[in-house]
Amino acid sequence: MTSGLPFDDIRALLKSMPGPDLEAAAKARTREVTLTKPPGALGRLEHISEFIATWQHHYPPRADRTVVAVFAGNHGVVAQGVAAYPQAVTAQMVANFQSGGAAVNQICKAYDLGLKVFELALEQPTTDFTQEAALSEKDCAATIAYGMEAIAGGCDVLCIGEMGIGNTTVAAALSCALFGGEPEEWVGPGTGVDEDGIKRKADAVRRGLALHKDHLNDPLEVLRRLGGRELSAMAGAILAARLQNIPVLIDGYVATAAAAVLFKADPHTLDHCLAAHCSAEPAHKKLLAKLGKEPLLELGMRLGEGSGAAMAAGIVKAALACHNGMASFESAGVSKKEA
Amino acid sequence: MTSGLPFDDIRALLKSMPGPDLEAAAKARTREVTLTKPPGALGRLEHISEFIATWQHHYPPRADRTVVAVFAGNHGVVAQGVAAYPQAVTAQMVANFQSGGAAVNQICKAYDLGLKVFELALEQPTTDFTQEAALSEKDCAATIAYGMEAIAGGCDVLCIGEMGIGNTTVAAALSCALFGGEPEEWVGPGTGVDEDGIKRKADAVRRGLALHKDHLNDPLEVLRRLGGRELSAMAGAILAARLQNIPVLIDGYVATAAAAVLFKADPHTLDHCLAAHCSAEPAHKKLLAKLGKEPLLELGMRLGEGSGAAMAAGIVKAALACHNGMASFESAGVSKKEA
Repeated sequence: MTSGLPFDDIRALLKSMPGPDLEAAAKARTREVTLTKPPGALGRLEHISEFIATWQHHYPPRADRTVVAVFAGNHGVVAQGVAAYPQAVTAQMVANFQSGGAAVNQICKAYDLGLKVFELALEQPTTDFTQEAALSEKDCAATIAYGMEAIAGGCDVLCIGEMGIGNTTVAAALSCALFGGEPEEWVGPGTGVDEDGIKRKADAVRRGLALHKDHLNDPLEVLRRLGGRELSAMAGAILAARLQNIPVLIDGYVATAAAAVLFKADPHTLDHCLAAHCSAEPAHKKLLAKLGKEPLLELGMRLGEGSGAAMAAGIVKAALACHNGMASFESAGVSKKEA
Repeated sequence: MTSGLPFDDIRALLKSMPGPDLEAAAKARTREVTLTKPPGALGRLEHISEFIATWQHHYPPRADRTVVAVFAGNHGVVAQGVAAYPQAVTAQMVANFQSGGAAVNQICKAYDLGLKVFELALEQPTTDFTQEAALSEKDCAATIAYGMEAIAGGCDVLCIGEMGIGNTTVAAALSCALFGGEPEEWVGPGTGVDEDGIKRKADAVRRGLALHKDHLNDPLEVLRRLGGRELSAMAGAILAARLQNIPVLIDGYVATAAAAVLFKADPHTLDHCLAAHCSAEPAHKKLLAKLGKEPLLELGMRLGEGSGAAMAAGIVKAALACHNGMASFESAGVSKKEA
């Protein structure tokens, strides 16, 4: 790319990601071994505490202000018959989030999480990627920037989720473009299409990749040509969280596909991210493996809308409660392990 | 066994377990499909809602009063060098639970769960099972009855956990007696013994099984000869919960071994129980498979004290919040799946 194009600012940002706070990590490890339990007995909860401190650049780690950010967009590729629900459902579900009726609302209430919903020009679906690039570079860069702005104001931990009829096809296209393989390996039932629908999804992905094949070496080009608004915004939010020292919980297949764009630009870009869960959408497990992320939960969920990330936020809260609240062997008068 | 012995009352109880409430289950399924999500999209959360309603014999399912019951006991078999910590730690950890310093306290606080701790004659460890039966039939039956009483007063959901230095060896002995195989398949590091310690554990189990070999066809005999007070009480609590329509979340390896005694008496005895998590203690996965239980969580935890069950209680709370709180397609004005 030549200088001055909108993606250049993002490329520059990708080169200036802050690293881990090793001092905060060391403080977490130092405290962990004093707590009244055998070393390592809390398993991944212990890793979570250290991870959150490391990427918050702060000790003790905290999750009092955890926010679920849900980005919603519409997709031209639904014209290819890839979705089980009509496109109007994207806006209807946004209204449902706003009135408190969706699954993610209930999980947020259960775990005292904040919820922010961002509509991304739902009345302007992206272009059908089997015909043309989904977004112009300008639109894509602006949407990434919008995603970055969206989390301004801050939170302790950010959960990233999405809503967008048709967007598991988009996630499959991105995954296939970024990591190779056959389209069939990356598509699945999504919200519940049948075998024919899955074939239409694979076919759309195949045609999209063929159309854009000369531009797929650049992850940001992959994002704008095959991606969508909510995926661009999620990528922006993940970047902004890194710059603001906010660890991220990535939700399902679609959110992970957005993250994968950043991973391909530089694998360390996702070092502040945990995979919240492994979705029932078959390709999610494979995509997580490509990113080297082991999910915290595997509950057969496949809803998107940040619901899996919100579930994982409950785990994070309990992990930090243990780390920050437990007594030490000394303070509790508990004998240590025999030599 | 001849009539009139203390175990007879328990055997009678085991034959009078209430079955599932199929009407409550049907109500849960009927509501589930009206909620604003693709059918099945919440995965195991949907099963949890139906399960809780089924075994609460009540619709809607509820988890407002969820209690973690931790049973603590001491074990004569620690004389065989099977534990990494001195026996005094059992009482010290009970004091830590009571003063709020343990991991389970923090998790309970994070998820608004009640915590009840029951000390079982900590100053009277069971007899070393490599020498004699751990408990007399009278003691064992009385402790089962104590466990049954312990949950009187009621709760919506019961989490079962334990504390007892040496009790992973006891769990291994029970598991090996109930399900066969070599002692080496059922022992592990527990709170952190080294390779030699693991060998001592396997050796103790082998000698225990040899000593009691003529009495291991009867699960209750297995419990009293190789088990312990906290395991007997946990078995009682699981039984009483069934009789009181309280679904149970079973914690780690030791709690699962107590449950396994009931399973061997009658597999349906555990129909109201969910496996909260799969512990890092290697034999736990195998034991859960014997019981046909798929754990909700797998976070590498191996602490006992109800900590894994308490984590799973957080999942249950969110599951019920979704089931009970979500809007329906109709009420939210969301279009249903296209035909």
